[in-house]
Amino acid sequence: MESKISFKNDYSEGAHPKILETLIQTNLVQEPGYGADSICKQAKEYIIKETGNPDSQIFFVSGGTQANLLVISHLLKPYESVIAADTGHIEVHETGAIENSGHKINLIPNREGKINIEGIQAIVNAHTDNHMVKPAMVYISQCTELGSIYSKAELMEISNCCKSNNLLLFIDGARLGTALTSSAIDLTLKDIANLADVFYIGGTKNGALLGEAIVFHNHKLSQGFDYYLKQKGALMAKGRVLGAQFLALFKDNLFYELGTHANVMAAKLASAFKKNGYSFATEPVSNQIFPIIPLSLAEKLTEKYEFYIWQKLDEQNVVIRLVSSWATKESWINQFIEDIQ
Amino acid sequence: MESKISFKNDYSEGAHPKILETLIQTNLVQEPGYGADSICKQAKEYIIKETGNPDSQIFFVSGGTQANLLVISHLLKPYESVIAADTGHIEVHETGAIENSGHKINLIPNREGKINIEGIQAIVNAHTDNHMVKPAMVYISQCTELGSIYSKAELMEISNCCKSNNLLLFIDGARLGTALTSSAIDLTLKDIANLADVFYIGGTKNGALLGEAIVFHNHKLSQGFDYYLKQKGALMAKGRVLGAQFLALFKDNLFYELGTHANVMAAKLASAFKKNGYSFATEPVSNQIFPIIPLSLAEKLTEKYEFYIWQKLDEQNVVIRLVSSWATKESWINQFIEDIQ
Amino acid sequence: MESKISFKNDYSEGAHPKILETLIQTNLVQEPGYGADSICKQAKEYIIKETGNPDSQIFFVSGGTQANLLVISHLLKPYESVIAADTGHIEVHETGAIENSGHKINLIPNREGKINIEGIQAIVNAHTDNHMVKPAMVYISQCTELGSIYSKAELMEISNCCKSNNLLLFIDGARLGTALTSSAIDLTLKDIANLADVFYIGGTKNGALLGEAIVFHNHKLSQGFDYYLKQKGALMAKGRVLGAQFLALFKDNLFYELGTHANVMAAKLASAFKKNGYSFATEPVSNQIFPIIPLSLAEKLTEKYEFYIWQKLDEQNVVIRLVSSWATKESWINQFIEDIQ
Amino acid sequence: MESKISFKNDYSEGAHPKILETLIQTNLVQEPGYGADSICKQAKEYIIKETGNPDSQIFFVSGGTQANLLVISHLLKPYESVIAADTGHIEVHETGAIENSGHKINLIPNREGKINIEGIQAIVNAHTDNHMVKPAMVYISQCTELGSIYSKAELMEISNCCKSNNLLLFIDGARLGTALTSSAIDLTLKDIANLADVFYIGGTKNGALLGEAIVFHNHKLSQGFDYYLKQKGALMAKGRVLGAQFLALFKDNLFYELGTHANVMAAKLASAFKKNGYSFATEPVSNQIFPIIPLSLAEKLTEKYEFYIWQKLDEQNVVIRLVSSWATKESWINQFIEDIQ
Repeated sequence: MESKISFKNDYSEGAHPKILETLIQTNLVQEPGYGADSICKQAKEYIIKETGNPDSQIFFVSGGTQANLLVISHLLKPYESVIAADTGHIEVHETGAIENSGHKINLIPNREGKINIEGIQAIVNAHTDNHMVKPAMVYISQCTELGSIYSKAELMEISNCCKSNNLLLFIDGARLGTALTSSAIDLTLKDIANLADVFYIGGTKNGALLGEAIVFHNHKLSQGFDYYLKQKGALMAKGRVLGAQFLALFKDNLFYELGTHANVMAAKLASAFKKNGYSFATEPVSNQIFPIIPLSLAEKLTEKYEFYIWQKLDEQNVVIRLVSSWATKESWINQFIEDIQ
Repeated sequence: MESKISFKNDYSEGAHPKILETLIQTNLVQEPGYGADSICKQAKEYIIKETGNPDSQIFFVSGGTQANLLVISHLLKPYESVIAADTGHIEVHETGAIENSGHKINLIPNREGKINIEGIQAIVNAHTDNHMVKPAMVYISQCTELGSIYSKAELMEISNCCKSNNLLLFIDGARLGTALTSSAIDLTLKDIANLADVFYIGGTKNGALLGEAIVFHNHKLSQGFDYYLKQKGALMAKGRVLGAQFLALFKDNLFYELGTHANVMAAKLASAFKKNGYSFATEPVSNQIFPIIPLSLAEKLTEKYEFYIWQKLDEQNVVIRLVSSWATKESWINQFIEDIQ
Repeated sequence: MESKISFKNDYSEGAHPKILETLIQTNLVQEPGYGADSICKQAKEYIIKETGNPDSQIFFVSGGTQANLLVISHLLKPYESVIAADTGHIEVHETGAIENSGHKINLIPNREGKINIEGIQAIVNAHTDNHMVKPAMVYISQCTELGSIYSKAELMEISNCCKSNNLLLFIDGARLGTALTSSAIDLTLKDIANLADVFYIGGTKNGALLGEAIVFHNHKLSQGFDYYLKQKGALMAKGRVLGAQFLALFKDNLFYELGTHANVMAAKLASAFKKNGYSFATEPVSNQIFPIIPLSLAEKLTEKYEFYIWQKLDEQNVVIRLVSSWATKESWINQFIEDIQ
Repeated sequence: MESKISFKNDYSEGAHPKILETLIQTNLVQEPGYGADSICKQAKEYIIKETGNPDSQIFFVSGGTQANLLVISHLLKPYESVIAADTGHIEVHETGAIENSGHKINLIPNREGKINIEGIQAIVNAHTDNHMVKPAMVYISQCTELGSIYSKAELMEISNCCKSNNLLLFIDGARLGTALTSSAIDLTLKDIANLADVFYIGGTKNGALLGEAIVFHNHKLSQGFDYYLKQKGALMAKGRVLGAQFLALFKDNLFYELGTHANVMAAKLASAFKKNGYSFATEPVSNQIFPIIPLSLAEKLTEKYEFYIWQKLDEQNVVIRLVSSWATKESWINQFIEDIQ
């Protein structure tokens, strides 16, 4: 069973070898603890180069749910809420982490995993007095949980809508690597940094052992976050471990290379499905694709591959989710393509 | 400045090379996420062998504050409190993490970092009605924050006191490696596992890149903890990273070797201080020692070494804290010994 | 403006005179604080007579949101959720109190303010692992927020569904007085007490100055609740004030008389609307009615009466909400009926 | 047993008759809910007249623990702490309400229930980095829990110390009525309002059925507090009930009359103890006195009176606490005085 090839997710392997090398090279140097080390410092400098914003305040944490709950509960007052898609990761797959930190999530019905400004405005308009929470933030994921990607125009529109409604914009970038390198979208880290009040750059799903880099737009937004990290158990004693991930990812563009590889592998798969006449539940543009295939084919494929059956459409057909990553081998893709022919 | 030798703490370096090797060897095997991987499984089996208790329920988390807040708030009801020494890590160095998770800490004045059963009983007796919190747990650290170690007899006494007062006993083992290998104390992991309702085995301060292994005495105590880990942002997607630390530490007794090395280095330092006529603020038995030296000597030493001035005793004398670790080189110790002669 | 007659809600006046009398009669007797007084004791005895369950554990609190957040967060573990209608009071009108206490609300689309067992089962089935919250309670309101009332058969079905899914059933009885005295439904407090694990009897909306009586089915469910009340700031020093409300309400059936009066007044209004050919958004059975009337009529009525425009149906028609209470005078009803003719 | 005269506390009776009268007079007027009524409005105007600060933002809540937890957790960020005496009500008699709302309390050893600026400064100085909480508020009680009262000079000193350390000053005025009317101290509500950032005026212990009036120095400090009140279950539907208490207390100086009466009764008792040669644990200046008497006398007195034995000094002597109130009859005092002769 372990010998099946897995397309279940983008965190089935350890780390890209270059990241392990960075860990090894820096391993025995004595460094200060809790993120005050020189490795974190260098990593932050590389990221700031990418954001183009010298005021960026960067904090490394170990995972996505941790990043989401820390950012949201740091920035909101107790009675303030966050607006998200009903498919948003914070709503469906974080065991109520946001509510446990004290905040309601106001939901917008998604379209291919995305929200739009009509949805935001409707929620703002419906919350009128102190018997209801006060919406104060918009949360989106880029890529979304359904593999789609907001275009630059869509992000600008959402960002403007947030500004005019006094809402903060928070972009969950667990899969930002594949979003920024998708051939379907023209978008840079600089754009993200300009449009969001706070976002994070996912390491875990793009080749790191662990780690997400939270980027606040300025120190006013991040004020006290160093205390909050420690209080919530998110400040690693050997912060250098997190720094090493992002140093390796950003000093020579590894971050983009890995995202590109994942996208190329997924695109190759998607092409094959299209060529064989299959359609998709959502248009494939990143490293998560959702082809619609006969149940019989899905069953055959599970003999050799691991993946999620996302949805049963009817007695005969299912949507499956296939996820590629930095570690996906082209030979796996080729083999899979043969198996769907 | 970076070239000074640091005795500031036991987390100044990365990981022991054998741990990095384990990471590398397992790196490209596809594994399930969130701790369901085969590496975590193996690591748990090795730990259970050490605890001697097949009912042990083990969970890996990234750091000590995280372990403390998760365990305490998982086991206590909102109005229940935890009893600790006034020098306890949860009281003084976790940015109010326990209170932020909702619980009061009832303090016992420490003696060399330890509490005793008179202190526990006094707190229990003082809490009599629903206008006060209800003490429900005792927290101790082994080694303590002042480098001392509870003897087996002391632990048994505390454990019995807890049972008779219906209190859970939680042992913070951030430095359990040096406690179990101290020449001053005869104590095994089996003893700890028998006496505590829950404890954790510190990886971070004993050679791991990160990671603490929380051990509940049985599944009743740990019920729902898998949900709670995820909700609090403590469940790593690549749980294998944590598993690899403990697999490497426990499959060939590396855990004990590293603790022993740290203790031996500290003992050598302590001997030298004694030989030179210096006394100690607390008796040196583990990898943290607290010699009392002239301020002038302390100042001289800071030119070549990093360490904390723990306390100013008077105009002339200070207590310093020196911490050794798995990574402390004997040559550093020898050089330091020369410098205090 | 103050001289308009208000049908906005059922808490526009102070207390029924008999309640004030009870306050006055008991006023200068010295009593223990914090609910240990003889007045609370008597009130509880009367309520237990009504529930028919000597194991009932009763606690008085000052208001409905307080009761809801205390009961829900007392009974749920942090990662457990409560299931409710999307029109439920806890979802829409409590400023995120439940989420602020740490818990997600799983929503069921309502039908006339009610949920059904298909909705409950669907939520239970969709929550399968530790990346999602664990549904552990069902919350319903009786009467609902749309004035409807669950029949005994419906409640039994829900109660059984809860039992078979290991869910607690909590009934918000802010308007239980009008539910139990509605001519549309045959239901007693004994039924409620048998079917719910915990419920509360609303005083505030049925003639009391303040106060809701929380009733747990047994002491196991209420264990520690006395501590929790105090911790959350809900334990009144002069608990006697709350006791006096419920003593007056239950010693001579005032509770039922007041509910009946409110229902009769609302029914009279409803009849008049029907007679004039108007229909209703939800069938009128309690003290909240939702007639559909022309906007022009609504505007005319607002010159003399206060009430909420609940919903705009189209350019010409609106749903309005009219609420009667124990204090509604028949002359007001008669006058209003004239004004809609 | 009920026929014993109680000196246990100042909340053994209901309300002063004038307060009940106000409730009765306003009872059947229809008013808006949730504190938007005309009675609350009038009450606030009277209080603002007393504070002399038109920017005062006033909110009525039902009790002291509720006021304390709401104010403290509203004003502090999660990692910020509040400084208090180790005898402070929030530390010893609120079931961990402050910690449950997320905040650590930094303790100063009290002197007769008071703190001083050396204690404040020592705590500020000891909190230096993000591994510790960040002190952000000072909490004092006026009168203190030991019956003592801060002088105007002491309050000014504390207020200045707070300002220079960027700490908010919060005064718990559960017994402010007896503090402001003590013959030992010259202090007005205006002084309190000038020196504190936020304080509350206790109704419950000074003749009201329930209710404390929280006074923020300006709207910036109170921003969002209306939402927070609702979220925490502290916003009463019939806010008028709270308004009526404070309207009655402040429209004709009843507040001061009741405080004065309590003080006079206590002073009479204190004189008698002095005349009989007894000393006090703390100097008697308000309505709580702590005479030191033989155990045998204490035992004799318990046959006719209820009061707390505060402390056992030795085998023969105890400190008792006697509390007078607005409702204490002079005849009780006279009788008690006879009984100690």
